[in-house]
Amino acid sequence: MPVSHETGAKDKQLIRALRGEPVDRTPIWLMRQAGRYLPEYKKTRAEAGSFLELCYNPELAEEVTLQPIRRYGFDAAILFSDILVIPDALGQAVAFREGEGPVLDPITRAEQLDELDLGSVVERLEPVYETVRRLKRSLPAGTTLIGFAGAPWTVATYMVGGRTSPDQAAAKLWAYRAPESFQKLIDLLTEATILHLTAQVEAGAEAVQIFDTWAGSLPEAQFRAYTLAPTRKIVHALRARFPNLPVIGFPRGSGALAIDYARETEISGIGLDTGMSPAWARDNLQPLACLQGNLDPLLVVAGGEMMREAARHILRTFGGGPFIFNLGHGIVPQTPPDHVAELVELVRATK
Amino acid sequence: MPVSHETGAKDKQLIRALRGEPVDRTPIWLMRQAGRYLPEYKKTRAEAGSFLELCYNPELAEEVTLQPIRRYGFDAAILFSDILVIPDALGQAVAFREGEGPVLDPITRAEQLDELDLGSVVERLEPVYETVRRLKRSLPAGTTLIGFAGAPWTVATYMVGGRTSPDQAAAKLWAYRAPESFQKLIDLLTEATILHLTAQVEAGAEAVQIFDTWAGSLPEAQFRAYTLAPTRKIVHALRARFPNLPVIGFPRGSGALAIDYARETEISGIGLDTGMSPAWARDNLQPLACLQGNLDPLLVVAGGEMMREAARHILRTFGGGPFIFNLGHGIVPQTPPDHVAELVELVRATK
Repeated sequence: MPVSHETGAKDKQLIRALRGEPVDRTPIWLMRQAGRYLPEYKKTRAEAGSFLELCYNPELAEEVTLQPIRRYGFDAAILFSDILVIPDALGQAVAFREGEGPVLDPITRAEQLDELDLGSVVERLEPVYETVRRLKRSLPAGTTLIGFAGAPWTVATYMVGGRTSPDQAAAKLWAYRAPESFQKLIDLLTEATILHLTAQVEAGAEAVQIFDTWAGSLPEAQFRAYTLAPTRKIVHALRARFPNLPVIGFPRGSGALAIDYARETEISGIGLDTGMSPAWARDNLQPLACLQGNLDPLLVVAGGEMMREAARHILRTFGGGPFIFNLGHGIVPQTPPDHVAELVELVRATK
Repeated sequence: MPVSHETGAKDKQLIRALRGEPVDRTPIWLMRQAGRYLPEYKKTRAEAGSFLELCYNPELAEEVTLQPIRRYGFDAAILFSDILVIPDALGQAVAFREGEGPVLDPITRAEQLDELDLGSVVERLEPVYETVRRLKRSLPAGTTLIGFAGAPWTVATYMVGGRTSPDQAAAKLWAYRAPESFQKLIDLLTEATILHLTAQVEAGAEAVQIFDTWAGSLPEAQFRAYTLAPTRKIVHALRARFPNLPVIGFPRGSGALAIDYARETEISGIGLDTGMSPAWARDNLQPLACLQGNLDPLLVVAGGEMMREAARHILRTFGGGPFIFNLGHGIVPQTPPDHVAELVELVRATK
């Protein structure tokens, strides 16, 4: 059995699952569990000023991270932050507008890459690490603290496109027209991600997750270059420093390429999106990594027997191997908090 | 060798590929090949009034269908129409607003389903079949005429959501909260699709494609109920009437579930989206169906050696089995027409 890099972490159910060790019960947490579906979140959010001010306020960010733990006793708390703190720390203008999502001053020329300041990332994100340190003290003993970052490709789509785009056209066109300078951006983001995740782990994060929301839109060659290879680099850099650190990847929409992703990145856990077949993932991915997923967040909005049966199906399918119950994508604002309570209860009641 | 249901069709390269017969060269057509990237399309479009008026004007719809054939000599012409002519023909208000996409008066209550008029679909879509008859006369002898429809699930997302939605939340929530009435909608759309495709084949379509743009967002159980099962029904109903009709499915984003889709629907051809690994599709899907795809449309915007190398990679990977060259999604308006010409030339020059 590998020795944990953090005293105590070896007994936590979620960490055990990520290491492929036997668990007493299925661990559960939910992507975006700290968020707008919770009235207490909305209250804190209203006190914070802008969304980024909330991310950079250690006291309030700690508070919203803890809210879903208090309510539901999840096995993991995920640091309250955002994947776009990296471009913000690199010096790109980032704003979050109500009802519109993130808006960045887009990077459209290779020369602009030279203005991005990798050297100041850790310094500028110090409030995030302070949040991690606070959480480390305030979280219940059995709760795993998960740090996170966006994957380089996904962060690049926002930096180049300036906002959420359904087809990631701006980033793709740059990659296709000028692969050398696009690779520079990916490399820079890979370095920034390593620095940011390293600082989170040093501050107390016991596992980290890499969110690659837009991995599924890339052709295979670019998936390998911009999603798989940078993730592998990040995993290896973290492992060189923290040999037993569990790292979870979430290559959303990657379909059958998730096999290569799991194998080649040597990631500890892999998040499954809603569309992934549980039986296929059990047969093809569970031998390679701990699985995490994949209830449709909209099933938690609907609730009722449909939600329960889908959750039971997931538990039955994945129960034989390393598994963490989660959603297939982030929880949505219109989710009734009672449905979440019922879901947690159902998962807890299952061995 | 099966006998063609249409005289002459047996010699067309695209039909031969769909039947798994040897071809002299790789057939090529592109999704949305009649569209806004062509100056001649924009000219005709401007004459037509609304987008739906263009769809329902046999003379102009014939003209825009022929435009890319004249320019590039594609192996197939796809009828110029839209997947939302079915809700329009069922009596739901459908409009296309410039820069906004389709806007429908959304169906939000089960009772509204009773107002949908299946009986008048074929009568109301008569102008579409007239376009098919015209095309049958005007297309070059070697060009296959492809009819099409949206798959029931994808059409339902628009009917219930009222517009393109990134998460198909409205349709999913209906399906989760009231599966019985949602199944009624799916069944109605399955019937309407069978009627619409049957009428297109009777008017002269030599193959048909079923577009399931939003198949990838469904959990497996709903994928089976709303995508796989209705498509199987459509394929079987068409085959009962036209035993040798090639039917192409495009279950976008279905990942590894495309194996079950190909096997269980018994579809002749399967369209691959951009994110699908060519090697994986060759190994797992090509034994089950003719493959069609899957160059990223944005590579055709970019052009150059990156486009050429990606096209050659696709040709090399799929060349050993039944294959039709196409994109992984529809061609986009900013595509330079010269890049399309270069792509066609490259595919033509490859055995």
